[in-house]
Amino acid sequence: MNVAIIGTGLIGGSMAIALREKKLAAKIIGVESNKQHAEEALKLGLVDEVDNLDEAISKSDLIILAVPVSVAEKMIVSILDQTDQQIVIDVGSTKNAICTTANKSKKRKRFVATHPMWGTEFSGPKAAETGAFAGNAVVICDKEDSDPDAVEWVEKMYRAFGMNILYMDSVAHDVHAAYVSHISHITSFALANTVLEKEKEEGTIFGMASGGFESTVRLAKSNPDMWVPIFQQNRENVLDVLNEHISQLRKFKSCLEKENYQYLTELIENSNKIKRILK
Amino acid sequence: MNVAIIGTGLIGGSMAIALREKKLAAKIIGVESNKQHAEEALKLGLVDEVDNLDEAISKSDLIILAVPVSVAEKMIVSILDQTDQQIVIDVGSTKNAICTTANKSKKRKRFVATHPMWGTEFSGPKAAETGAFAGNAVVICDKEDSDPDAVEWVEKMYRAFGMNILYMDSVAHDVHAAYVSHISHITSFALANTVLEKEKEEGTIFGMASGGFESTVRLAKSNPDMWVPIFQQNRENVLDVLNEHISQLRKFKSCLEKENYQYLTELIENSNKIKRILK
Repeated sequence: MNVAIIGTGLIGGSMAIALREKKLAAKIIGVESNKQHAEEALKLGLVDEVDNLDEAISKSDLIILAVPVSVAEKMIVSILDQTDQQIVIDVGSTKNAICTTANKSKKRKRFVATHPMWGTEFSGPKAAETGAFAGNAVVICDKEDSDPDAVEWVEKMYRAFGMNILYMDSVAHDVHAAYVSHISHITSFALANTVLEKEKEEGTIFGMASGGFESTVRLAKSNPDMWVPIFQQNRENVLDVLNEHISQLRKFKSCLEKENYQYLTELIENSNKIKRILK
Repeated sequence: MNVAIIGTGLIGGSMAIALREKKLAAKIIGVESNKQHAEEALKLGLVDEVDNLDEAISKSDLIILAVPVSVAEKMIVSILDQTDQQIVIDVGSTKNAICTTANKSKKRKRFVATHPMWGTEFSGPKAAETGAFAGNAVVICDKEDSDPDAVEWVEKMYRAFGMNILYMDSVAHDVHAAYVSHISHITSFALANTVLEKEKEEGTIFGMASGGFESTVRLAKSNPDMWVPIFQQNRENVLDVLNEHISQLRKFKSCLEKENYQYLTELIENSNKIKRILK
């Protein structure tokens, strides 16, 4: 099977590695608008060749869209319309916008909407990792809108990667993604800005920073080109969660202002319940 | 050298392991108000014996206070007043309160105020780890208020643990700790409460949660018995940082409400500067 990967960055590159490792791709063709990334992807052996979009589609059996969600949404209909019996998947962090748009193509059924729940704060071909997806979840959305043979092949691929497949409609996916992923990025970005705004002795932070700080702030290294379109497409859900989060933080603030340490203890005890739902 | 460790939990227990590993303690005596923890500390071999406070002090050359900061503050003067030439250290996350209180003892100079910048979200003797402190920073506060021989021994111990020693006055320490540690815990607690409040399908979170969510929420497992006293003692600094953090989050909210994606991009680009000051 020949595979076209559109966008050879963190996710596209890691998919290339996994496809090769599992012997699921005879040839991998990269499509990449960033020249430096195209060269890196070739040099790193992530892709066998780099080609333009039309050529790559015509030469491939599987087409993986691994570009920012705004770009994927713009490309999906024209890509689908060019396909014959190829399978097209996306790997974006929002699913409702692309599914709604894909419905406009007469070839909608060749598209499988997926969201592998893995990522790091880094980007570009050099950020691609071996064994990236194993042990994590992948969400397949609106499965009934895709051809069974296409879904089956995609399931086989993600299972080979070691992923646990969840099925969801794309609207529900976006609500849950706001909670388990998008809000974490906003709190990290805002926490980094908090520290950068108020703490002028950067050397001291650098010296003192330990695991706790790093784990809550590391997502703040994430690329705006990827994240702004996600927040844009999932705007209403993210706003809902963000409003709730600000009101939860205000409870902590109020406890401290009023020196109500009994209620502060209760708030922390409640948050400890997260033990139940974290691995 | 005989060492008394008052509080045989996460930090006290990990200190015991490190002291033994570096052959810095001939005998380790645990003082522990929680009977189950006392038994666990003995069973795990963290301590050689468990004794009452007065006996432990009289038998020891080094006394390590590894209890919640509120308890440490209550105990410090009476412990110091009982000492002869022993060295007393604490390992708490706030430093101004204990230093101010310790100043009331005529034996103040035998006390060295320290904050090893390491911890996990777990607590109790079973949470103690081998090699916990290596590669992290430890802050020694108000060094000039301690006897040089006491400081020297404590420096030797932390260096043997593989820690980088920073020196700070206790007031400055508490400001920096609010930024690099305390606020991260508040954001994590609040994020857990946000998700628990709004997301009723806990199974779905469990299924979808990946690295990003886990890293921003894992601190929410932390023990309120440890953290409420920290927030209480560092209340003003924590409130300062928390107010700034809420106002930073409001900027993200406003961008989404007004669909101002240019400014959202700028906010994220600014937060990316954290790359400079994270390891």
